[in-house]
Amino acid sequence: MQILDGKIASKAVKDQLKLQTDKLIEEGKRPPHLVAILVGSNGASETYVASKVKTCAEVGYQSTLIRFEESIEERILLDKIEQLNNDNEIDGILVQLPLPKQINESKIINAVHPSKDVDGFNQVSVGRLVQGLPTFVPATPFGIMLMLEHYKLETKGKHAVVIGRSNIVGRPMSILLSSNLYYGNCTVTLCHSHTANLNELCLQADILVAALGKPGYIKADMVKEGAIILDVGITRVDDPSTNKGYVIMGDVDFKSVAEKASAISPVPGGVGPMTIAGLMKNTMEAYLRKV
Amino acid sequence: MQILDGKIASKAVKDQLKLQTDKLIEEGKRPPHLVAILVGSNGASETYVASKVKTCAEVGYQSTLIRFEESIEERILLDKIEQLNNDNEIDGILVQLPLPKQINESKIINAVHPSKDVDGFNQVSVGRLVQGLPTFVPATPFGIMLMLEHYKLETKGKHAVVIGRSNIVGRPMSILLSSNLYYGNCTVTLCHSHTANLNELCLQADILVAALGKPGYIKADMVKEGAIILDVGITRVDDPSTNKGYVIMGDVDFKSVAEKASAISPVPGGVGPMTIAGLMKNTMEAYLRKV
Repeated sequence: MQILDGKIASKAVKDQLKLQTDKLIEEGKRPPHLVAILVGSNGASETYVASKVKTCAEVGYQSTLIRFEESIEERILLDKIEQLNNDNEIDGILVQLPLPKQINESKIINAVHPSKDVDGFNQVSVGRLVQGLPTFVPATPFGIMLMLEHYKLETKGKHAVVIGRSNIVGRPMSILLSSNLYYGNCTVTLCHSHTANLNELCLQADILVAALGKPGYIKADMVKEGAIILDVGITRVDDPSTNKGYVIMGDVDFKSVAEKASAISPVPGGVGPMTIAGLMKNTMEAYLRKV
Repeated sequence: MQILDGKIASKAVKDQLKLQTDKLIEEGKRPPHLVAILVGSNGASETYVASKVKTCAEVGYQSTLIRFEESIEERILLDKIEQLNNDNEIDGILVQLPLPKQINESKIINAVHPSKDVDGFNQVSVGRLVQGLPTFVPATPFGIMLMLEHYKLETKGKHAVVIGRSNIVGRPMSILLSSNLYYGNCTVTLCHSHTANLNELCLQADILVAALGKPGYIKADMVKEGAIILDVGITRVDDPSTNKGYVIMGDVDFKSVAEKASAISPVPGGVGPMTIAGLMKNTMEAYLRKV
């Protein structure tokens, strides 16, 4: 059984990006520049953004964190995005989700110019993904594809079952895995909250992508012998015995499932680091397209 | 067993659109206006375009058919689309596919302004479809949704198997059926040329959408008792015994499959007429959004 170690696989991606950035600097060019916008002070969002900023430093990118109060008006945020869209020294813009209720999330996402949409959430990016055109793939599905690539896990003709139909993970993941790509060409079943016979479908999966947000939901009796398991779940579960007061749990009951799987990504240390690697690759791509 | 009669279901849609158009005229407004662009003289394309123009007349729309020689340069076509995009008296623009080899199909499709993209092939339209935002749904999947609606076929929680991953039919169909829509919320399996166990998967389908372009491929032994069968196939098969020299065949072996299905769409007279109904509804929608 192979552990799909996101720390190792993401390090390989980051090392390569660092080499690319160093070369740019040597050539007298500026490094890629990512701007992250954080509204409010949600604990998980703070962690994610901090991690993205830290990774920028690791690969040699410039990063800027712009903070707004929870009570910010939509107009102010839109004006800021417009300004960043027009700034030639900025390559990628990401708006950390979720946003407070007074703000139309879809409007904000689609305000980011497609050429700087390193999160891949803009409707143009999504449309291009569906049509198989060059685009920015959302960071988590992109990270999973990079993971498959790193561990050279063949996908063609396999049956992938994706649980969860979010715009951020499940939906684009199902599109990618079923597309005519080297790490694609799977038959894909997309499951969600209305799926009637989830256990039965999971048992058919050669590749199982769990993105339902229910800690430990996928048990060994739902998994086929030899399956590849990709756990996208990342839920904070209260645990007073720890220093932080919580633990991070995936959607997969790792211990029991690992005994049947041929390969499995742990949580933490699996898909999470790959997501940031995907974002960093998108940022370099945005930079290179501009230059 | 219910025959899903596309002539009846499309007539219902068209009758409603005719009433809407009549009302517009009574109010002193102009009717919706669809422009179709036809390059070359492919037999099937000629038939489709003629049918679209005829249906415009039926529902009271204005239509304009613009023809170009097979040898046309891409630039000329792009200029024409740009001109139509800027013409306020035109609501919908469709470019009949396929296009000749010297023309980049994707470039042409994406040149049509999203607000006039009644075929729903533009990347913005596709992105909005994925994100569940108001958009133009490609005519064939839209027609199938209208068919399900007309015959009040419940879909929620059912397992839909879609065969074929084209941008025009299979892919958007799989997205729609799995979306959080009244005639959606299916678990969807998307199959294609690399699918290993197609028969086995088809046998699980409560709803089977066949869009592979292989006449008569789906046989009774691939279909579950009581399934709903939607046949998108429309292949010209040589038949010297007919006046035209060919017959139109679907992907489903109608006679044998009809005995097991709870509902089935025939070819011709099933999904085909619904496709045009979908296009007409999109054109009205484009008109109304502008006004």
